[in-house]
Amino acid sequence: MRLQINATLHYAIAETADIILAIEAAQTDDQILVEDLLLIDGSGPLRPIEGEDGIGQRTLALARGLFMATYQAVVEVTRPIPDMAQMALTRPSELPAFTIPYIWPSRYCQSDRFEDFVKREFSGLDDGRKIVAMADWIYDNIEYRIGSSDGSTTAVDVFVKRQGVCRDFAHLLASFARAADIPARLVSAYAWQLDPPDFHAVVEVWLDGAWRLVDATRLAPLDGLVRIAVGRDATDIAFLTIFGSAELQSQTIEVRRLDQV
Amino acid sequence: MRLQINATLHYAIAETADIILAIEAAQTDDQILVEDLLLIDGSGPLRPIEGEDGIGQRTLALARGLFMATYQAVVEVTRPIPDMAQMALTRPSELPAFTIPYIWPSRYCQSDRFEDFVKREFSGLDDGRKIVAMADWIYDNIEYRIGSSDGSTTAVDVFVKRQGVCRDFAHLLASFARAADIPARLVSAYAWQLDPPDFHAVVEVWLDGAWRLVDATRLAPLDGLVRIAVGRDATDIAFLTIFGSAELQSQTIEVRRLDQV
Amino acid sequence: MRLQINATLHYAIAETADIILAIEAAQTDDQILVEDLLLIDGSGPLRPIEGEDGIGQRTLALARGLFMATYQAVVEVTRPIPDMAQMALTRPSELPAFTIPYIWPSRYCQSDRFEDFVKREFSGLDDGRKIVAMADWIYDNIEYRIGSSDGSTTAVDVFVKRQGVCRDFAHLLASFARAADIPARLVSAYAWQLDPPDFHAVVEVWLDGAWRLVDATRLAPLDGLVRIAVGRDATDIAFLTIFGSAELQSQTIEVRRLDQV
Amino acid sequence: MRLQINATLHYAIAETADIILAIEAAQTDDQILVEDLLLIDGSGPLRPIEGEDGIGQRTLALARGLFMATYQAVVEVTRPIPDMAQMALTRPSELPAFTIPYIWPSRYCQSDRFEDFVKREFSGLDDGRKIVAMADWIYDNIEYRIGSSDGSTTAVDVFVKRQGVCRDFAHLLASFARAADIPARLVSAYAWQLDPPDFHAVVEVWLDGAWRLVDATRLAPLDGLVRIAVGRDATDIAFLTIFGSAELQSQTIEVRRLDQV
Repeated sequence: MRLQINATLHYAIAETADIILAIEAAQTDDQILVEDLLLIDGSGPLRPIEGEDGIGQRTLALARGLFMATYQAVVEVTRPIPDMAQMALTRPSELPAFTIPYIWPSRYCQSDRFEDFVKREFSGLDDGRKIVAMADWIYDNIEYRIGSSDGSTTAVDVFVKRQGVCRDFAHLLASFARAADIPARLVSAYAWQLDPPDFHAVVEVWLDGAWRLVDATRLAPLDGLVRIAVGRDATDIAFLTIFGSAELQSQTIEVRRLDQV
Repeated sequence: MRLQINATLHYAIAETADIILAIEAAQTDDQILVEDLLLIDGSGPLRPIEGEDGIGQRTLALARGLFMATYQAVVEVTRPIPDMAQMALTRPSELPAFTIPYIWPSRYCQSDRFEDFVKREFSGLDDGRKIVAMADWIYDNIEYRIGSSDGSTTAVDVFVKRQGVCRDFAHLLASFARAADIPARLVSAYAWQLDPPDFHAVVEVWLDGAWRLVDATRLAPLDGLVRIAVGRDATDIAFLTIFGSAELQSQTIEVRRLDQV
Repeated sequence: MRLQINATLHYAIAETADIILAIEAAQTDDQILVEDLLLIDGSGPLRPIEGEDGIGQRTLALARGLFMATYQAVVEVTRPIPDMAQMALTRPSELPAFTIPYIWPSRYCQSDRFEDFVKREFSGLDDGRKIVAMADWIYDNIEYRIGSSDGSTTAVDVFVKRQGVCRDFAHLLASFARAADIPARLVSAYAWQLDPPDFHAVVEVWLDGAWRLVDATRLAPLDGLVRIAVGRDATDIAFLTIFGSAELQSQTIEVRRLDQV
Repeated sequence: MRLQINATLHYAIAETADIILAIEAAQTDDQILVEDLLLIDGSGPLRPIEGEDGIGQRTLALARGLFMATYQAVVEVTRPIPDMAQMALTRPSELPAFTIPYIWPSRYCQSDRFEDFVKREFSGLDDGRKIVAMADWIYDNIEYRIGSSDGSTTAVDVFVKRQGVCRDFAHLLASFARAADIPARLVSAYAWQLDPPDFHAVVEVWLDGAWRLVDATRLAPLDGLVRIAVGRDATDIAFLTIFGSAELQSQTIEVRRLDQV
């Protein structure tokens, strides 16, 4: 699937502030950047750095005044959607080193607190079926409601309140997976057919020797996702971090399919 | 300073369990391994993997029955203790990529919740003096009391209760630093003169272009520390993680200075 | 049902400490005290005061050294077990004044955090069926496990961990009820057929113009319960509060039926 | 001091909702109601009930559409401001029964978590000086900032964030007092000279055999306070509780001194 991405962020930043921007599509085996252009107004010199796990990149700068970031890309996504239910889990002692950080709890994914629940609810399931069941449970029990959470909402909060948005669904799924000793990381993404269009947050779990995308919200097809960044938590993958105060002026995101009849 | 390290862990593990062991001294510029021997009884084949940030190594295995790990090393520590107060802070937009994960909050270091306190208490201080003041505040306001916390205790808990052990002091210091946008990571270590002898937890902050050790407990000299592992939280650097249940039989740690008259 | 109660508490209190003791059966319409004797060794003069809502009594004293409290009673319990499902709920604006404090959240019953869950799960149910469904949900979803919680465990903790003891079951049920604007209070009780014998904690909800006992643990029959004290939380109804430190020596509780063939 | 109070609340309530209103000045020894008029539009029949501890009254009703409550009163406040520092504390075993509920933790006053801090910081102080020192500590360490907290903010949150409004100052003071076994309750009040005019929340502690007003915010003189209601927490004393959704249209409060030259 060939996707055209257009994203524009527009902020007013009163006093000079450090920023970290993570809105560029990552180049990975299953998503090839055909075209890719980042334009930024209202900042000092840009400094691109590698994202976590070598995936994607972040751009660092000092910004001031009217800050505008525009990103345009054409991405060829060639991601088969395999049957996750049949995929093998890896026991902890056989995990690759780079997956280990993703079995621990994190700020918004207190997986240690879900160990008993996860054992009680999902212990009978083998293989990727365990992940499928976790994502189904979340879809069935958590209401997707815009405005029901904020930047301080944790997986425990979502589990109790039973409402959340994409980052909350992702935090809860990552928490369940880690509570079962399955590596799970947060992924920010552009998502084709996401309505209303926005940055999306999903999860990757380590199954059958690779990271596999899972989206408990079911709001967008997995083969239309374009990864931006990965991390332990929503904080790590925020599309824009401003060390200071800023006022959002506007934000638009557009993901169009180019090769569709 | 040349140090002789002897560590022995002894557990009874009823049912086969995956383990992650992190008790080997790391080889870094300021700590050279002269001798180094890890012996393990009661486990299947060992699989060594690299620790986080390429520091030290972890050993993974399946363990069962009487599990005993013995580690012996001679380490030459050549760590000058510089005056941290004079060292320059790095603003976020100029941080190296590999330090970025250490400015975010983590499971036990909810740095986001300390931003106002840190601004109120430490904002007048420049350079490394900010870190020195944070460590002093913790030393002055938190009582070191064995048994006052457990594995679920967070930096917020410690801040409220005003009691903790080394991991709690480290969590609180890392939280303060991150709340001021200074990268800070947890470090597990062998510590000369620590009394009673035990694994120690301290902090490294990013100052003047390098990671600098800080120990808010003041329980052991910085030039007698031997790093084992680094991570975002105590969980990441636990000396032994058992995915199942185990019973501690005994644990002994000894750190002796060899070159002392 | 006529019940014989024998309770003995035995503590060692190193330094003189204030105590509040609440182990005497309350005299209410449906439980008549036939005999009733409280003996206390190791304290200064006793001062009995009325319990909350005028139910039962507490005894205050200064205690020191070997403190022993013995309580013996014969109680005639004449409590019909009505069909709660048919009982009418009272809307908030028609509640009696003395029930109002029991619709608010309390330390261990954060009912405000369960409002969305309760609406989602139980809003279709009218009358006492709502309470029956709540108690059933708790029985079905929470595992009764001794040692799974402690004195700081809240209803939110229990909801996440899915394990608890009687006080946790009661906290969760009271939280659910209050989240639906139904007054609910904690009740400490002696319980016939509770195994192993211990103090029990259950809930009273305001239904059809009276307080009705509910026990989500199903560990003891409602017509064999003897109320001791009522309050908002387990803290308010603790059988013994010691303002200082004490060491438990022994505790025995016995509830025997006298009129059984 | 003779005070004239005018309060008007104006809400739009889309669907019929139960309400509890607590805006009438309480009649107590030190505040005599000279005139007193409550007018309510937009509700069904009013039902006045007694407030907690027999202080003041609440009004219950069903409301719908444009709901307007107007309260006008003239109150003679004859409250000496004694020197609290010299007043005797009462040890727990000698407390009157009705003060006991106010030594326990509550939803927003987790006094159990402050026991170590309070011992560390205030244990050297006798008598009312302990309370004076607590109020001073809060005044010195917490910034009064409108908008820094919301209805879910607890005393622990305020202690960590170091910012709050009157209800947060009151919650923290009540928590400190209860952690030292001193009964403390929340009080809602009209406050002369409070700027901007609003409902105020302060604390009453049990000292020298009576409830004594304390206001850690120092925003209004104690002899110009007119109590409305008392309770364990801000929730219990909310001026308006709506069981449903409502939109605030306007709210005005005016407290004028009548006998001033």
